Amino acid sequence: MANSNSNSHYSKLSQHFQKISHFEHLSALGDWDQATMMPSGGSEARGAAMAELAGHIHELKTADFIEETLNLAADEVLNKEQAANLREMQYQYFQANIVPASLVQSKTQLAYQCEHAWRVQRKNNDWQGFKPNLEALITLVREEAAIRAQAQNITPYDALLSKFEPDMTTRRLEKVFGSLKSWLPQMITQVQANQRNDLKVEIPSFSAKKQEALGRDVMSFLGFDFTQGRLDTSSHPFCGGVPGDIRLTTRFDETDFTQGLMGVIHETGHARYEQGLPKQWRGQPVGGHRSMAIHESQSLFCEMQLGRGAGFLSQLEPLISQHLGAELDSQALTALYTRVESGFIRVDADEVTYPCHILLRFEAEKGLVDGSLAVADLPDFWAENMQNLLGVDTRGNYQNGCMQDIHWAVGELGYFPSYTLGAMYAAQFRYAIEKSLGSVDALVAQGKIQVIFDWLEQNIWSKGCLLSTDALVKQATGEPLNPEYFKRHLEQRYLK
Amino acid sequence: MANSNSNSHYSKLSQHFQKISHFEHLSALGDWDQATMMPSGGSEARGAAMAELAGHIHELKTADFIEETLNLAADEVLNKEQAANLREMQYQYFQANIVPASLVQSKTQLAYQCEHAWRVQRKNNDWQGFKPNLEALITLVREEAAIRAQAQNITPYDALLSKFEPDMTTRRLEKVFGSLKSWLPQMITQVQANQRNDLKVEIPSFSAKKQEALGRDVMSFLGFDFTQGRLDTSSHPFCGGVPGDIRLTTRFDETDFTQGLMGVIHETGHARYEQGLPKQWRGQPVGGHRSMAIHESQSLFCEMQLGRGAGFLSQLEPLISQHLGAELDSQALTALYTRVESGFIRVDADEVTYPCHILLRFEAEKGLVDGSLAVADLPDFWAENMQNLLGVDTRGNYQNGCMQDIHWAVGELGYFPSYTLGAMYAAQFRYAIEKSLGSVDALVAQGKIQVIFDWLEQNIWSKGCLLSTDALVKQATGEPLNPEYFKRHLEQRYLK
Ligand SMILES: [Zn+2]
Ligand SMILES: [Zn+2]
Repeated sequence: MANSNSNSHYSKLSQHFQKISHFEHLSALGDWDQATMMPSGGSEARGAAMAELAGHIHELKTADFIEETLNLAADEVLNKEQAANLREMQYQYFQANIVPASLVQSKTQLAYQCEHAWRVQRKNNDWQGFKPNLEALITLVREEAAIRAQAQNITPYDALLSKFEPDMTTRRLEKVFGSLKSWLPQMITQVQANQRNDLKVEIPSFSAKKQEALGRDVMSFLGFDFTQGRLDTSSHPFCGGVPGDIRLTTRFDETDFTQGLMGVIHETGHARYEQGLPKQWRGQPVGGHRSMAIHESQSLFCEMQLGRGAGFLSQLEPLISQHLGAELDSQALTALYTRVESGFIRVDADEVTYPCHILLRFEAEKGLVDGSLAVADLPDFWAENMQNLLGVDTRGNYQNGCMQDIHWAVGELGYFPSYTLGAMYAAQFRYAIEKSLGSVDALVAQGKIQVIFDWLEQNIWSKGCLLSTDALVKQATGEPLNPEYFKRHLEQRYLK
Repeated sequence: MANSNSNSHYSKLSQHFQKISHFEHLSALGDWDQATMMPSGGSEARGAAMAELAGHIHELKTADFIEETLNLAADEVLNKEQAANLREMQYQYFQANIVPASLVQSKTQLAYQCEHAWRVQRKNNDWQGFKPNLEALITLVREEAAIRAQAQNITPYDALLSKFEPDMTTRRLEKVFGSLKSWLPQMITQVQANQRNDLKVEIPSFSAKKQEALGRDVMSFLGFDFTQGRLDTSSHPFCGGVPGDIRLTTRFDETDFTQGLMGVIHETGHARYEQGLPKQWRGQPVGGHRSMAIHESQSLFCEMQLGRGAGFLSQLEPLISQHLGAELDSQALTALYTRVESGFIRVDADEVTYPCHILLRFEAEKGLVDGSLAVADLPDFWAENMQNLLGVDTRGNYQNGCMQDIHWAVGELGYFPSYTLGAMYAAQFRYAIEKSLGSVDALVAQGKIQVIFDWLEQNIWSKGCLLSTDALVKQATGEPLNPEYFKRHLEQRYLK
């Protein structure tokens, strides 16, 4: 893995990043345990230990020797993979060092307070309470964005995007999302008009225990290896842990098993990506996931391209009947899992209306960062756009409007586009698979789901960060991001 | 907690030891997770992360500035508790720095290999395979002991004892154990002769799930607070975690619930000690447990003084009936839990025969360390002593003889005496409680178990390391270690 000369600058860096990964392993364990296992009495000591660990990791990431050593390593003879690793080291070092520690600290502190207050304020629909907090946080975000922008000679919002999507630009997103905006609201109207309301299915109640057993079987069907990870419950589902030991969580609603089950399928997509990252590069920057959009493309591939397709639902039918004893045939499951309904809440949205929530947030974030949208004007902006995009009225309903997401409450701007980019990449991968292997739905229905995962492993998972996002997508599908596949997918599933 | 002058040398040390405790928190979490939760695929990355963490903790414990700062702090104005904290800092620093890193590393490596081999060798009764490994390890232990002895101007075996029992000496142990040896074998013969064999009770089978529910209720009865800890299962029971979040484990044998249940009671004793350590000193050396013998005294107080007493077993009867539906009255439970039988295995021994296993190991360890006993002669030594002490024949039975414990296989000598010292302290505490509060058995039977724990909390737990072991025991009971109480306890329970 390392340069054959173990005294090289490259291998000094390689050892250092491996060391960082060991401490990040402990950080992932601490996070997972806190969310799934830790009793309340543990929070004080855990909080202190995790803060200490975060500080230590930050020290390692900003160690004095790195900058010069990166420069010296650039002059060494490296093979292609080592060169890619060095590129990712440079990227990570840059991201960790670009913002002054004092600004990182003030933002972390403010975000912590703001999030705590938001949990109560959201419950109370208290926009007047949230507004000054968000204003203060946005001021710091703009400061951060300006520093990042100057250092990279890009625009401030591009600089925020690049934290999650290296190489993605506002200009490119505007093109992609502009096209989406031109046809999606109309499609939603059309889909809802055609939708058969007589197919509405009553969902019976099932114990969490039964749902968990079903979830495990579905995970195994999706190729999840339980010697390489676990499933537990937490109030907010996530996919944590490390590649050889993925800690996936979900929650079960006893009155509606469908959401928890789809949550398991979604997180299993994230998990298989992590488990499939190149083993020989574990602990090195080039061995990590490519970007948040590519990560989300894998979960959405499982959830949307596979999970809500007729082939998969036909396989799900006997498992549901076995575990829950419910008589839900694949027609009923399809009706449940492809229902389209305009609503207030992003995380509850179906795959057709979901991108509208992102379009709105993308425009809002750009405005908040470049100053053309004041925090005070956010509710009006929200109401107007929700009306135009989805035909729903959010006036006065802050808690289900601009206060619904945690992202802004912790000062995280630039992340939202990754969700819809992920959905687009997932569709593009699906059509690439179909070009070489035939219908994904048919493969799943015939019990050949393994060949689909083989394709993903070979083309996406095993590549880690060896290629740029564009190069990865092009190598896998023959072209860079092309949102037409997403449109085609929605048309095929919802307008046929 | 810290010296009011936050720039003092003392407070610099206090901050540093607090930092160490944060990393030790993560180490405890990693150990617990590995034993209870981690899937097999996680072991490689976890092993690397834990080794990195151990190295980092060692670096912190041996940081250059500590020695001089300890000396400077000794000249500062400290209150009594701060002075005790400084004393414990000095002790910990000394323990961590006394042995050269190279020796620590070779011993760790050899111990790791030796343990792995031992797991197979023990299964195969392979003394010839184990012997050279143990010889190599004992050579390193003697080297370590010599260095520790010279630095403290004490004997090598005393130096090993002091790792677990500060201030304990071979001379003192010889007196205590010598007296034990003079009356215990005879008492065992007498107890076994009197024992009614017609009281042998058949133990019904119960699922692990039912046993776990019973275990939790018994823990609650023993005052365990589940907001401050958890119960899980692991192949080797232990009490881990941190004081606000104790991670206790056990294992359940479906064909015999009695051992698992008593295991839970034992570990709960350890847990309550940890949970009861002084909160205002958490993370500081003076806030830790006093010694391994005092730790064991708390688990054995729960298991032996409380758990096998008639008062406790009468309280256990309805809980067993509720959870297991078994008809085991307190007479049957007493017969089960106070049966005395000479056997091969230390960890399976009852409280009467147990000290014989320790007497033998104490003599053997002394001989191995001072060179008067060669590893090659260990099996003969074992056979002779087991015959004399317990009347059992271990010739040729290495796996249930001198190969049964993990301690020597990982180079840990000097630990065994703590077990029997713990049993003695437990008895001494019990009689001290009875002097002021009346019969422990009667208190438990009357539902007043809380006053017993209040006494332990006030006299033992909340003292942490503020006092030396002798001062602690004297303050709590009016005299230092007096093994007469242990004898009196056995006579009362087994010879009445
Ligand atoms: Zn996701
Ligand atoms: Zn114990």
